[in-house]
Amino acid sequence: MNAVDIIIKKRDGLALTKDEIEFMINGYTLGEIPDYQMSAFLMATYFRNMTDEETYHLTMAMLNSGKVIDLSRIKGFKVDKHSTGGVGDKTSLVLAPLVASLGIKFAKMSGRGLGHTGGTLDKLEAIRGFNISMDIEDFIDQVEHINIAIIGQTEEIDKADKKMYALRDVTGTVPSIPLIASSIMSKKLAAGSDAIILDVKVGSGAFMSNLADALKLATLMKNIGTKANKKMTCVLTNMDEPLGYAVGNSLEVIEAINTLNGRGPKDLTELCLTLGSYLLIDAGLVKSEIEGRTLLLEQIKNGQAIAKFVELVAAQGGNVDYIYHPELFDLGEEVELKASESGYISHIDSYVVGHASMLLGAGRETLDSEIDYSVGVVLNKKVGEYVNAGETLATIYHNGKNKDEAYRILESAYRYSKEPVDVKLILDVVR
Amino acid sequence: MNAVDIIIKKRDGLALTKDEIEFMINGYTLGEIPDYQMSAFLMATYFRNMTDEETYHLTMAMLNSGKVIDLSRIKGFKVDKHSTGGVGDKTSLVLAPLVASLGIKFAKMSGRGLGHTGGTLDKLEAIRGFNISMDIEDFIDQVEHINIAIIGQTEEIDKADKKMYALRDVTGTVPSIPLIASSIMSKKLAAGSDAIILDVKVGSGAFMSNLADALKLATLMKNIGTKANKKMTCVLTNMDEPLGYAVGNSLEVIEAINTLNGRGPKDLTELCLTLGSYLLIDAGLVKSEIEGRTLLLEQIKNGQAIAKFVELVAAQGGNVDYIYHPELFDLGEEVELKASESGYISHIDSYVVGHASMLLGAGRETLDSEIDYSVGVVLNKKVGEYVNAGETLATIYHNGKNKDEAYRILESAYRYSKEPVDVKLILDVVR
Repeated sequence: MNAVDIIIKKRDGLALTKDEIEFMINGYTLGEIPDYQMSAFLMATYFRNMTDEETYHLTMAMLNSGKVIDLSRIKGFKVDKHSTGGVGDKTSLVLAPLVASLGIKFAKMSGRGLGHTGGTLDKLEAIRGFNISMDIEDFIDQVEHINIAIIGQTEEIDKADKKMYALRDVTGTVPSIPLIASSIMSKKLAAGSDAIILDVKVGSGAFMSNLADALKLATLMKNIGTKANKKMTCVLTNMDEPLGYAVGNSLEVIEAINTLNGRGPKDLTELCLTLGSYLLIDAGLVKSEIEGRTLLLEQIKNGQAIAKFVELVAAQGGNVDYIYHPELFDLGEEVELKASESGYISHIDSYVVGHASMLLGAGRETLDSEIDYSVGVVLNKKVGEYVNAGETLATIYHNGKNKDEAYRILESAYRYSKEPVDVKLILDVVR
Repeated sequence: MNAVDIIIKKRDGLALTKDEIEFMINGYTLGEIPDYQMSAFLMATYFRNMTDEETYHLTMAMLNSGKVIDLSRIKGFKVDKHSTGGVGDKTSLVLAPLVASLGIKFAKMSGRGLGHTGGTLDKLEAIRGFNISMDIEDFIDQVEHINIAIIGQTEEIDKADKKMYALRDVTGTVPSIPLIASSIMSKKLAAGSDAIILDVKVGSGAFMSNLADALKLATLMKNIGTKANKKMTCVLTNMDEPLGYAVGNSLEVIEAINTLNGRGPKDLTELCLTLGSYLLIDAGLVKSEIEGRTLLLEQIKNGQAIAKFVELVAAQGGNVDYIYHPELFDLGEEVELKASESGYISHIDSYVVGHASMLLGAGRETLDSEIDYSVGVVLNKKVGEYVNAGETLATIYHNGKNKDEAYRILESAYRYSKEPVDVKLILDVVR
């Protein structure tokens, strides 16, 4: 067996065997197969696709390229959540304490943001003192003890994905369904939970710009997880506008706190209730979605959801004063973006909003960019709302960096319509 | 401009601009664009192809990545010849002295063999003392003086092709028409002749296994050369059997000597007369192919063709005794391959014959394999001939290495038919 023959077989559209896929992934992880052969293989895969069986073997080979976290000593039902990367997506900050407050074990390894999308870790680090680095043993202890922990992904898990993802990013091989599915699922399977819920974003700010492809991706990931004995849910959600109002690290934490206090944006709250209710069903706590939503709303009302978030922040060294008093967060100077025309807002391009926010300093242009937690954008109106020319569309929080460029870019994110527009957040559910 | 955007543009099937192509090739040659981005680009090109204009710009960018040989101080008409790589292809050894004996300047930079195909340099080195390394200035002097020189390609020309070819070989991106065309034409244009004649092989032992693709490649290369002010001829020839009878270095030199003496195989002689007559037309020495053939045959009969070969060998340090007395060549032990059935030979798979010969030691499995000049295969019967079971099909010359394996493999190269079979050597000419 050799790498060139496997590349040629994929190039010619033939399905690879389990052994051939393992040969590629193991060889690449060990450095025996060079980057230039892997990138040719990835590009051939982009064009020729993979069968479901090949993608499963690819996922398993990637999973086995590193350590698999053993959560078995944690009693109870363990869940994990992943989003394919949205703009303004602070869902995990709300969902995790919400379900953990009901006794579900939320052991989450999270990522940093790159480009126009933010990362959960960056948002948590906006809370002074919050520590996202922890030994696996301490991580497990914390989940055992308070049901929740959110840390950075350790270097030891899914070594193949780390190398492959970095390579895909610079070789034009990111938007391939089998490559996206295997990258997500190998990491999630390595994290060792009983149930996995995936939020597959659809729209301009997402990997998948159309529903058909997103559905394919979701179904593929669900099947891989099911085959690996996980309870799987994929929720397809609209990214044709940012989620909630806030984009930017401190701003998003504030919005998450508000949501946990029952004063969150409608779409974000709705998404957390939907995802949460499926997890409650998987955990056997409730029989139906309706029952789940009622229970979750109760946890918000009775203060247990926000109390769990306080517990999480305290356990990981963060200053809980910020959670009690969100006004303590340091924010940049405000500039208001005014509507240039009147009409119904029909589209707020997530990618563009995310890009504007990144330029202000909220995100990373390259892996080693420094983040400014205090900047970002807060929308004032969402898609479907009517706006009069001159009204405030959004507030920009800046510290001088790229202020004018961000303003111009943000302005270009809006589309208007003379007629009312329908907005749908949850596009489909694959379970 | 950056490499990822260019890769993505090609991946998405859009035509690249001259600037984008130059950016890729210059960046890669200078080591600023890494192998892994080039290999993704090459694989995307394999799938998306290139327009004729893109291929032209690619060729020119590759040409300009290194030195272009200036032959202008050589008076007279300068020609160059290239074959896309055949089995038993000793055409250059015959054609070069044949046309040089008529005053045409044959300044050829040649390559080594790899895999199942042999290289002109390796064949020449079978002649004791023959030196294929020479300064460009000495090379030009020799062509000025005796009309002919054959040396190895210098490191300085077409630097991009050297890197790209090595990379294509290990990334499954060899069989792409624009990549083959640009690789051949950039090297040939760098060599500085007035006319270029290309022998495009078609069949199992060749890059192009079908005539339609070969015709596309030939037309593309002809157009590139014409645009660069070269007189261009592409001859498409059948590689569904080896050319001539001999495969292996010393064996092929002996056959070339016989051909220059008027006692060569019919197909090899025919090919040399065809290619040579086009070169004579380009040089303005004759008006028609017929006239050209007559003149060339005369050079064989009057001994001037072989005399020119002796002059070449002497000028490059080779022992001319071998040319006068081919029986001096050291050859391996003989084993005869017997026909297992009776019938008309319908196919002798060139790839398989070349592979058997390589296993005996005549070719290189890897770039640093040592060559055994004394081994190879001499066919006794060619396609179209009738053979009785038990008759000798071919003689294997070996020194023990892989003898039995080569015998079995060689046997598998033959196909038989009950009916007489037609053989056509010259499939098409693009001028």
